Amino acid sequence: MRTDLPAAEAQRLVLEAVAPLPPETCATADALGRVLAEPVHSGRTLPPWDISAMDGYAVRATDLGSAPVALPVAFEVAAGSHRDRPLPPGAAARIFTGAPLPPGADAVVRQEDCERDGERVRIRRAASVGEDVRPAGEDVREGERVLEPGTRLGPGPLGLLASLGRSVVVVHQRPRVAILSGGDELVEPDGDVRGGRIVSSNSYSIAAQCREVGAEPVYLGIARDTPEDLARFVRAGLSAHVLVSSAGVSVGDRDYVRPVLEQLGCTLRFWGVRIKPGFPLTFGRFDSRALEGEPGPGPIVFGLPGNPVSAMVTFEQFVRPALRRLAGHRALFRPRISARLGETLAKKPGRLHLVRVRLDREHGEVVATSTGTQSSGVLRSMALAQGLLVFPADADRLAAGETVQVQVLDADFLAAEDSGL
Amino acid sequence: MRTDLPAAEAQRLVLEAVAPLPPETCATADALGRVLAEPVHSGRTLPPWDISAMDGYAVRATDLGSAPVALPVAFEVAAGSHRDRPLPPGAAARIFTGAPLPPGADAVVRQEDCERDGERVRIRRAASVGEDVRPAGEDVREGERVLEPGTRLGPGPLGLLASLGRSVVVVHQRPRVAILSGGDELVEPDGDVRGGRIVSSNSYSIAAQCREVGAEPVYLGIARDTPEDLARFVRAGLSAHVLVSSAGVSVGDRDYVRPVLEQLGCTLRFWGVRIKPGFPLTFGRFDSRALEGEPGPGPIVFGLPGNPVSAMVTFEQFVRPALRRLAGHRALFRPRISARLGETLAKKPGRLHLVRVRLDREHGEVVATSTGTQSSGVLRSMALAQGLLVFPADADRLAAGETVQVQVLDADFLAAEDSGL
Repeated sequence: MRTDLPAAEAQRLVLEAVAPLPPETCATADALGRVLAEPVHSGRTLPPWDISAMDGYAVRATDLGSAPVALPVAFEVAAGSHRDRPLPPGAAARIFTGAPLPPGADAVVRQEDCERDGERVRIRRAASVGEDVRPAGEDVREGERVLEPGTRLGPGPLGLLASLGRSVVVVHQRPRVAILSGGDELVEPDGDVRGGRIVSSNSYSIAAQCREVGAEPVYLGIARDTPEDLARFVRAGLSAHVLVSSAGVSVGDRDYVRPVLEQLGCTLRFWGVRIKPGFPLTFGRFDSRALEGEPGPGPIVFGLPGNPVSAMVTFEQFVRPALRRLAGHRALFRPRISARLGETLAKKPGRLHLVRVRLDREHGEVVATSTGTQSSGVLRSMALAQGLLVFPADADRLAAGETVQVQVLDADFLAAEDSGL
Repeated sequence: MRTDLPAAEAQRLVLEAVAPLPPETCATADALGRVLAEPVHSGRTLPPWDISAMDGYAVRATDLGSAPVALPVAFEVAAGSHRDRPLPPGAAARIFTGAPLPPGADAVVRQEDCERDGERVRIRRAASVGEDVRPAGEDVREGERVLEPGTRLGPGPLGLLASLGRSVVVVHQRPRVAILSGGDELVEPDGDVRGGRIVSSNSYSIAAQCREVGAEPVYLGIARDTPEDLARFVRAGLSAHVLVSSAGVSVGDRDYVRPVLEQLGCTLRFWGVRIKPGFPLTFGRFDSRALEGEPGPGPIVFGLPGNPVSAMVTFEQFVRPALRRLAGHRALFRPRISARLGETLAKKPGRLHLVRVRLDREHGEVVATSTGTQSSGVLRSMALAQGLLVFPADADRLAAGETVQVQVLDADFLAAEDSGL
């Protein structure tokens, strides 16, 4: 097991260990946010025939050569009509948007350019072949490849799949994340905190981080600080794709997480990343041989630090991109912006710091200011953080006014002030 | 009723008609993405006492004046321990991260600076008062206001609420959106499309657009093209906050939507917006007097065009910001970026065009290129669109290479290529 890794190398090791999950078949109506695991070919031609793009009259363009002309109205065609009556030469058909052109017709004249008079219509101007007609196959042709693997299924692709009659779709499985907390001092949010007990808030923030990235959290509960209890919880999480533990704050002499994981067959890849907050991060993986009777690989495992802020920050840097890759996404990381630093920051060189910052727009630029004390126990600083400023490992000082790089956590910060209409 | 409105004015009228929905009480564990409807005050002081920030030894700083010193180890304090044993003068207590400082202790020496020898510990250096101690109330004090109304409940605020023992929270109600399609030619995705029938894909793309913005879609189904059937469906949607209808493609002579809405008591505010795609957009609102026996206001109503692309684009411009405001969000709009236009675009002046574009990064700038035919029937162009280029109403030409404004639909486009670690 390696230890004391630079942050970028630790992240690389994590991402090398994961690949998109195998495919599953999912109802299209439930597939929002999922990622296509195979290409989609159209089983239909859309529109299936030439259809009208307007309300008006379907004609043969040659019949309008001497416009204005008056033509008899042979019949009416609505959307959804059968395309069974041919248009007689020298006649027009009343037609509506989306309706199939009758055989023989090759143009549509909008109703604004026509005047109806009983059985006849007076058409004021000539039309060219194909005018206001949407040709068959304009949207898609049968057999054509319309969506690529790796496509995120947003409203547009889902509408397209519906229009092709695809009520199921093959997507990457959704990562299932087993979450456990460990520590004799921890209680659930409605628990009794007298006598120094503290709420196991990590499981709640981690579950929310999982949901935001589209993964499915399975909260296992709070393990007591004994190897036996920890082992029982870890076993309960082995059927997940990812196991995330966050230690109680009582690490040190009583940190049983790593020995328990190894005893159960987890190969630990690294422990300790030169990052603050979050140094004690542990990463490993169960392989199939370790799991008696279980087919396939076991979960990858993240042992997050117990401090609430450290747990959230390490989740952001290591767990979140891994979950994105497992779900089949190609874009793994948060948006990153340049910002002007609103205050001077200093640290000892050696570890990369991720500083919780507020972001403000001033005179066309973004100003980043720390959310107050950077103590890793102070959850409020994380609750208020709109971004994480990257303070490089070898730097010891960032001066007020300098340009810095910020990972943007608050998507609303990127929203425009108006729609631009 | 007004008609033929500029796009910006229509959007302003819509947003003036909506305000954040009333509050409801929601389980904190289910509140991800919801918006706080009232401030949150802390019912606790966190940490409740001075606690250790490190594994090490709790001491009186004055006892280390002549360091190195050897002190007897009086007892051990773990996180979650009671704070009942005072530290005798001239002694140290073994302590772990997060554990309460025993009365009398005022500093912690990290274990790296200590050497344990049976009942005693040798401490190599002096410590200042408060060193490696997290003071009581560092995170939050009882009664303090910790979260403001309007805060979006992401993982950070949810973790903070959990740590305060708040298992329920008061948030704005989630908008419920009744969706109906109208048109004799429409079938559900698994329906028979022979004879010119087409899939009602709008209800699927609109439901997905609602879910993406955090609203709850209620799909009412496909109404036939008769006033009676339409009225039946509209009535079924009156208990929602928002009613969204999308006409079949057969509008024109058989568009019953507006007369049916008015007959049921809806006051139409406008019809027809100088926008393409999407001109036939209709907006109105039921007021309480119109609804027999129903308390409170009725829903706001959007009549979207039937064309799949027009429906999605008008949803983006008008329905989405209204849903964001109803849910309590302050940021209503998509991120907007400047991009270089990859091709020359032309149109007649008069209507604002929203052009579906692909976005590519080239030499440090973003290039916007149309996704192909801009025919409003072509759903594929919307499925592939990463943004909507704003082609202003009074312009007739945008030249290749010009700087244009693009509303970004694809959040992944904003993702960084790497984490920046």
